[in-house]
Amino acid sequence: MISLFEEGAMQIDWDEVTHVTKVDPAKPLPTDLEVLSGTDLVLVGGSDDVTEANTLETINLLQAAHPDKLVFQEPYSAAHVSSATVERADAVAVPAVYNGDRDHFVGKHVDLFTEIGEQPAELLGATLPLVGRFVESKGRDVVAELAANLVGEGYVVQHLESAAADRAGVDTTYTPEQVAGAALATETFYGFPIFYVEYSGTYGGPEDVDAAARYLEETKLFYGGGIDSAEKATEILEAGADAIVVGDCFHDDPETFQATIPN
Amino acid sequence: MISLFEEGAMQIDWDEVTHVTKVDPAKPLPTDLEVLSGTDLVLVGGSDDVTEANTLETINLLQAAHPDKLVFQEPYSAAHVSSATVERADAVAVPAVYNGDRDHFVGKHVDLFTEIGEQPAELLGATLPLVGRFVESKGRDVVAELAANLVGEGYVVQHLESAAADRAGVDTTYTPEQVAGAALATETFYGFPIFYVEYSGTYGGPEDVDAAARYLEETKLFYGGGIDSAEKATEILEAGADAIVVGDCFHDDPETFQATIPN
Repeated sequence: MISLFEEGAMQIDWDEVTHVTKVDPAKPLPTDLEVLSGTDLVLVGGSDDVTEANTLETINLLQAAHPDKLVFQEPYSAAHVSSATVERADAVAVPAVYNGDRDHFVGKHVDLFTEIGEQPAELLGATLPLVGRFVESKGRDVVAELAANLVGEGYVVQHLESAAADRAGVDTTYTPEQVAGAALATETFYGFPIFYVEYSGTYGGPEDVDAAARYLEETKLFYGGGIDSAEKATEILEAGADAIVVGDCFHDDPETFQATIPN
Repeated sequence: MISLFEEGAMQIDWDEVTHVTKVDPAKPLPTDLEVLSGTDLVLVGGSDDVTEANTLETINLLQAAHPDKLVFQEPYSAAHVSSATVERADAVAVPAVYNGDRDHFVGKHVDLFTEIGEQPAELLGATLPLVGRFVESKGRDVVAELAANLVGEGYVVQHLESAAADRAGVDTTYTPEQVAGAALATETFYGFPIFYVEYSGTYGGPEDVDAAARYLEETKLFYGGGIDSAEKATEILEAGADAIVVGDCFHDDPETFQATIPN
């Protein structure tokens, strides 16, 4: 684990991140974690059967195998986050879903930040040597440090028949023009460091990536969904994605997974 | 008008802004616009009977009387915005209402940015010497410049019996802890340059401002609602607001309005 606690997550060198692996803590890891050698960032998170405990166990196993690899927690529920996961992960990636319901773009986020503001001690417990008085006297600094470890992700979920769409209240996909609009809003208005086109379980092709890439300069463009070959990986990267996100085949088919890693 | 088109709105020296006047284009202006001498920024916008035409006329009258004063358009509808208003105003302030409905935090914004992305020529028409081909070849640069002139405002609307609450679909006010949470979300996650506590028509006291100010460093804290005396202005500024916003009495009672301007 690279500690980013002091500097905040913004110190990450995003230019080095072109291949991202999404790991579901509720699924078994491949026997040989060497398959992760070529990936640049691991996102740990999922919905069904995911707990704080299996999230933490997964982060620990990944970091034991790859001490220098970036590992983010991407929690699907606040119940998966604890002072231990915040302490162990390099950052906590928090999705905001443009085409989801109100809760998944702003509602749950205000709840989370309200909780952080009210309970810095409980959330940060283990990371601080002098918890009680330190938090009382330095409450705002501690909160600022924790907040600096959160990475916002502006999501568009484009596959209605996915668990991600169901969970985030997505009942309509965006046209490429709307994807471009959401990308422009991310770059200039909401300011999340990542804009994420998520086809979750199916391959969406390069069209949305091509539309979004026109308006992104500081924001990093991630694409996830159905990438199971070098050809698809290349097609998405050539359309303008900064990084591809590969999930399912990491758990199911390590050979296919390795084919998606750019040389 | 100070032209910010090239540099973008972020060049504004926010430290100089402590008194803001909200001007409703549908209401008559005071006979003597000298009353505005002590204010630092004018926001032009409103709902009932506001049009693009009376918005533009109001901006022109204000700029004729005070050529060096910052004047922002704060549109309540996209129909109030045109290439002429964008060109004349120093910036376009775009509210995102934390405790409003989905449309007023994200829905209308993606629509707006989608429109900007699709029609840079139409939106920017008058500002560019070589519109047609220039936009085609430099489309992205033009869009980036326009987008840089938008200033995001993270709003919390705290008076349910107001037109602002009705319009933005606000049906519940926030506790001071939730106001603090929304402030922290603004500072660290959404990144709007302004966090705005809006009591619209009634005086809310210093409690929300005090709660929000703890978590704001880069974000500027605006408070608006019911300020009709030097005492209330001082109370809000001492609680930690960077600026007070004064509206109604500017139109109705210029003497009271002048009393709200800090010395």
